[in-house]
Amino acid sequence: MTHQPSGEDSLIARYFKPLATDPGAFGLVDDAAIIPADGDDLVVNTDAIVEGVHYLPDDPPDTIARKALRVNLSDLAAKGAVPAGFVLTLALRQKDEAWLSAFARGLGEDAAAFGCPLLGGDTVSTPGPVMISITAWGRVPKGRMVHRFGARPGDRVWVTGTIGDAMLGLAVSKGGPAAAALAGDPAARDMLIGRYRVPQPRHLLAVPVREFATASMDVSDGLAGDLSKLCAASRVSADIALSQVPISSAAAKLVTAGYHQLEGLISGGDDYEIVCTVPAARCAAFCAAAGAAGVAVTDIGVIVEGPDVPRFLDEQGRPVVLKQRSYSHF
Amino acid sequence: MTHQPSGEDSLIARYFKPLATDPGAFGLVDDAAIIPADGDDLVVNTDAIVEGVHYLPDDPPDTIARKALRVNLSDLAAKGAVPAGFVLTLALRQKDEAWLSAFARGLGEDAAAFGCPLLGGDTVSTPGPVMISITAWGRVPKGRMVHRFGARPGDRVWVTGTIGDAMLGLAVSKGGPAAAALAGDPAARDMLIGRYRVPQPRHLLAVPVREFATASMDVSDGLAGDLSKLCAASRVSADIALSQVPISSAAAKLVTAGYHQLEGLISGGDDYEIVCTVPAARCAAFCAAAGAAGVAVTDIGVIVEGPDVPRFLDEQGRPVVLKQRSYSHF
Repeated sequence: MTHQPSGEDSLIARYFKPLATDPGAFGLVDDAAIIPADGDDLVVNTDAIVEGVHYLPDDPPDTIARKALRVNLSDLAAKGAVPAGFVLTLALRQKDEAWLSAFARGLGEDAAAFGCPLLGGDTVSTPGPVMISITAWGRVPKGRMVHRFGARPGDRVWVTGTIGDAMLGLAVSKGGPAAAALAGDPAARDMLIGRYRVPQPRHLLAVPVREFATASMDVSDGLAGDLSKLCAASRVSADIALSQVPISSAAAKLVTAGYHQLEGLISGGDDYEIVCTVPAARCAAFCAAAGAAGVAVTDIGVIVEGPDVPRFLDEQGRPVVLKQRSYSHF
Repeated sequence: MTHQPSGEDSLIARYFKPLATDPGAFGLVDDAAIIPADGDDLVVNTDAIVEGVHYLPDDPPDTIARKALRVNLSDLAAKGAVPAGFVLTLALRQKDEAWLSAFARGLGEDAAAFGCPLLGGDTVSTPGPVMISITAWGRVPKGRMVHRFGARPGDRVWVTGTIGDAMLGLAVSKGGPAAAALAGDPAARDMLIGRYRVPQPRHLLAVPVREFATASMDVSDGLAGDLSKLCAASRVSADIALSQVPISSAAAKLVTAGYHQLEGLISGGDDYEIVCTVPAARCAAFCAAAGAAGVAVTDIGVIVEGPDVPRFLDEQGRPVVLKQRSYSHF
């Protein structure tokens, strides 16, 4: 009898070997991969997504793969790191060829687009929901990772893109009043659902973040809660102008129609934007570098002294009471 | 309001922050960790374990944590790599303090014992079975990772420890005839169950493997199937003396009592031993190095030319027919 791969090995060979083009991956025929460091620091991040928790069971498989990778790339970008590679753990209920084929296609396209090759992985069976866990690496010059700590009073607070689209996209996906409010505007509806399914990591901002930010993190569990974490790590507070928080026109439409309150958008999850702090004197240069990188950034407030959570101020400068600041799994 | 951690953050702070003693972990207050490479190659491996698939729901939580880490350390050892650190993804149904406390204790003890610090992680909720995914790194001098490929005709085939204990331990855990056969021998019963629950990674053999082996991998899905993979990657075959495959006295007792066939032991999973190939002229030195490291190794056969799967020969030199060669998830 000649060598015959097992079901698991043939699954890996068929769907994932074509993605493992990096020399360190050894075509996935080995048990481990090599990451040559070449003098840089390797920044490592791990994030998992679970069916029914982070994505909907009927979401297109290629978007699930993209989201699983992109939530990790978002963290790397916020740390100032340029993607270098990833490993994948895939827990599946069964071997569904159509699902796997679309999943691997999406994953491969994103790995190529973001310059982040698959280096290895593990495929296991589970009786429960599908889970995709990815560990990704990026490179920074030695000692140059940007932390949550480091923000100083007077630094301006910047955020990329728009906030709240993904939580609205999830609400729209589930139907109900949000979907009804956008029934006449399929473009807005599709944009919001797209933002939930396929986040846009701000990888192009990695180098400007490294160059200009005193502290940085990605916004994944709600802007209010995540900025609180950055402030706690930096032992500072912040005053944020709620009206300056960037929202999309689709989100604005739902807020104006009374479907959703503006303050709710800053405590929802899944934005995958970057919040970072930049000394006032360097903001013009940061803004120019972000513009050159093609990433929209908005100045939303200022770091202040004190032990309190950041205040979100209305147009009269009064703090807005937030019922909840972030999404938590427990 | 001063900073209050979310449920998820307090879970991480309470149970896992004490384990994150490595400077690159930044006390788990950041979104990412740093792995300084210092000129070595970093070998990366990822393996997940799922409740009900890789361990039993009632297994002690500290043993589940140890197994999750050790299955990765086993791979690193087989590649000739010395542990450097790991990240953890933990998918939980609920926040069970007693379970988490015991889990974190076991994980911390093993991280310290094996010199493999926790660098970061992600904790997510799942409605399904608990899943623990670990990605671990080790170091090898540049270009020195030991591969599955590289075995040459004439090389001797070596295996560490004993084979088949874990599959028998699982059978005994589940009760039935295996448990009945060992009813009078609680020490044998406990040894086998212990081998299923808490594998012993052969990390002490990493340097001898790097020094002497032409090819190497860990035995996790059955010796017969895993050796087949090594032979396929090396484009060789092997002749193995079935009677030379090392088995424990507890396993021998079950085989002698007719409970289990010897050839079944070489296709069961969860051994977490190392199978490697060593040129005949270097076997004495390899054996001495293994002895100095305190790891039992056994010569079970020889690499031969040809495209066929390895043959397991009985005492008359006749190939034994194997119904199944390995455990596969799909």
